[in-house]
Amino acid sequence: MSSELVVTRNGPVATLTLNRPEKLNALDLAQWDRLGDAVLGFESDATLRVIVIAGAGTAFAAGGDIEEFTRVRRTPAEARAYDVRVMRATRAMTGSPHAVIAAIRGACVGGGLEIACACDLRIAAESSRFGIPVARLGMAAPPEELPPMVQLLGIDGALELLLEARLYDTREALAKGLVTRVVPDDELDAEIAATAQRIAAGGALAARAHKRVVREWARAGSLSPAAIDQAYACIASDDFREGVAAFLAKRRPQFTGK
Amino acid sequence: MSSELVVTRNGPVATLTLNRPEKLNALDLAQWDRLGDAVLGFESDATLRVIVIAGAGTAFAAGGDIEEFTRVRRTPAEARAYDVRVMRATRAMTGSPHAVIAAIRGACVGGGLEIACACDLRIAAESSRFGIPVARLGMAAPPEELPPMVQLLGIDGALELLLEARLYDTREALAKGLVTRVVPDDELDAEIAATAQRIAAGGALAARAHKRVVREWARAGSLSPAAIDQAYACIASDDFREGVAAFLAKRRPQFTGK
Amino acid sequence: MSSELVVTRNGPVATLTLNRPEKLNALDLAQWDRLGDAVLGFESDATLRVIVIAGAGTAFAAGGDIEEFTRVRRTPAEARAYDVRVMRATRAMTGSPHAVIAAIRGACVGGGLEIACACDLRIAAESSRFGIPVARLGMAAPPEELPPMVQLLGIDGALELLLEARLYDTREALAKGLVTRVVPDDELDAEIAATAQRIAAGGALAARAHKRVVREWARAGSLSPAAIDQAYACIASDDFREGVAAFLAKRRPQFTGK
Repeated sequence: MSSELVVTRNGPVATLTLNRPEKLNALDLAQWDRLGDAVLGFESDATLRVIVIAGAGTAFAAGGDIEEFTRVRRTPAEARAYDVRVMRATRAMTGSPHAVIAAIRGACVGGGLEIACACDLRIAAESSRFGIPVARLGMAAPPEELPPMVQLLGIDGALELLLEARLYDTREALAKGLVTRVVPDDELDAEIAATAQRIAAGGALAARAHKRVVREWARAGSLSPAAIDQAYACIASDDFREGVAAFLAKRRPQFTGK
Repeated sequence: MSSELVVTRNGPVATLTLNRPEKLNALDLAQWDRLGDAVLGFESDATLRVIVIAGAGTAFAAGGDIEEFTRVRRTPAEARAYDVRVMRATRAMTGSPHAVIAAIRGACVGGGLEIACACDLRIAAESSRFGIPVARLGMAAPPEELPPMVQLLGIDGALELLLEARLYDTREALAKGLVTRVVPDDELDAEIAATAQRIAAGGALAARAHKRVVREWARAGSLSPAAIDQAYACIASDDFREGVAAFLAKRRPQFTGK
Repeated sequence: MSSELVVTRNGPVATLTLNRPEKLNALDLAQWDRLGDAVLGFESDATLRVIVIAGAGTAFAAGGDIEEFTRVRRTPAEARAYDVRVMRATRAMTGSPHAVIAAIRGACVGGGLEIACACDLRIAAESSRFGIPVARLGMAAPPEELPPMVQLLGIDGALELLLEARLYDTREALAKGLVTRVVPDDELDAEIAATAQRIAAGGALAARAHKRVVREWARAGSLSPAAIDQAYACIASDDFREGVAAFLAKRRPQFTGK
């Protein structure tokens, strides 16, 4: 894997670090492909619980690589083809069975914000900045990338963000529902680690069922029999027997993910 | 009715008190049945306006009765049958023509939180605690019980609550949208009474139409002709004639619910 | 156009001022028609970017004209016919290709709140007041006017507002998501102007595509091919070429809306 996307693994937690710090981690098409590849590559890894997405240096990701736009996003047809590759990455994230957390520090703008919105949780250092000021480029955001933003912000908040093309500080981003949680800059790494640890301490089957049920219902307005089956399958697991036994014995459960 | 669910009536307000204080009002199957029975029993009572759900002692409800799980929730099939009885109660609440208010004090966890989320309003004493830490039991929450939680918290908030399995204090619960309102502990009873009084002071037909329209649209994304008819039927009521006359005479209306 | 709805134009910004200050801008049927006419009249004006809706005097709009109700809203059939004219105005606003901003000062109640909820952004002076206390009239709100309120407030917030029939101050309205932003009373005009200016500084085609995509997805849960096409059509525009060139040259773009 290229050094532009650094993948590290620490037990149940994989961290994908966007690593073009000299470009504030702006995403070119190759980077979107790498991100999609990395997330999809973890799909069947039953020992993984959490994927953290972070940025190297002073930014999370400042957006698309605008210079590259002049070569690969010149026509509506090129833009559609471009966005298919963007959506391959973001849909890998929302569709991943693992919890996906954005660890946001600095600029989280444009394509960077699209990545953050496709994560399950968005934890931000206090000095972060957020926005999708594409109206200043005279272009609309990829239309099929907007629903996750509308789900977080509502109609009101999404139109405010897109029409005014302002950048938000973390206070405003938190008030609008754009981020899950804000912490002082020097506590971001510890909060990400603690959050991943809390998630990994719960049953893996339960977490995967919860993510599937919530995302499927939010997308479709109803639940498929398969999603319901997956939730109830937890009851037949070793983990459920262990969880109940541990609860009644007032001890910590030892889950195996089976 | 069993002493484990105490039903009291005070004019247009009925209060259902979960009364197993030694178990922090944990709900066993019999209690879910009693709750469903009580709410359904009020369905055609045109003199009722508000159902308050409260907990005796120091908790609202600490969740399901985990000891009982080892007898009645051992297999996926048993869990489905169990949840049918849970959902009979919660759907009686969302489907009730009356306003249903959760009066929350202390632990509001697991099944207790499911009850709260099925209420129309959630008013909490400041020292309350909220969560659904079922991942620690190695099980998923009843999948068809999750949509009301997602409607309150959004995708982001629902995944945060389920995946991290943390407990929230009232400050966090309010910020996330999990409760309607928080009051100092010693003002909870007065706030519940004042809220019920404000609701009962409005027209009954209007309140029932409003609840139906809001809930039907939130569930289905559209309104049935019957829901629209019910809203317009208010215009043919004595209450509407009285309401307009009172408004123009600058006096309080005397509604009869007809 | 009648003096009861004053239309002014300032470059890319049109302001529609409800002008019955002696009635706190209460809306009678003729006023709903004027509002609908004015908004629809701007539909194909490609030089317009923003429609501001404001109230003359001390209120935004105190609601419907209740005296008129005794002549034109006496039966369910009359109420339906009345609401068709209300919805012609509010749907003109949500369907307008231009950004529509409510400039709220004072009472924003009943029909006034329906207007505000149909705007894309709601900017309020600090001393404003909000509510839809129709239950006190013994009537239900126009059922098909409620979805925009539920989209802003959620089920919880919409039921709270309708069932309790309280008025909210701006602090509560902001916390509940009923308004986009609150400013000191003497800064309202400047904030409206600055917001309109920020919107007008972005590309017109992008803004129209953003509004269409967000509103269509929020209404239908999916995007039509036509909405997606409209978003990608920006890529073939002069504005997009100018926007990218200006970004790379680190200068302000000069958009033409073409």
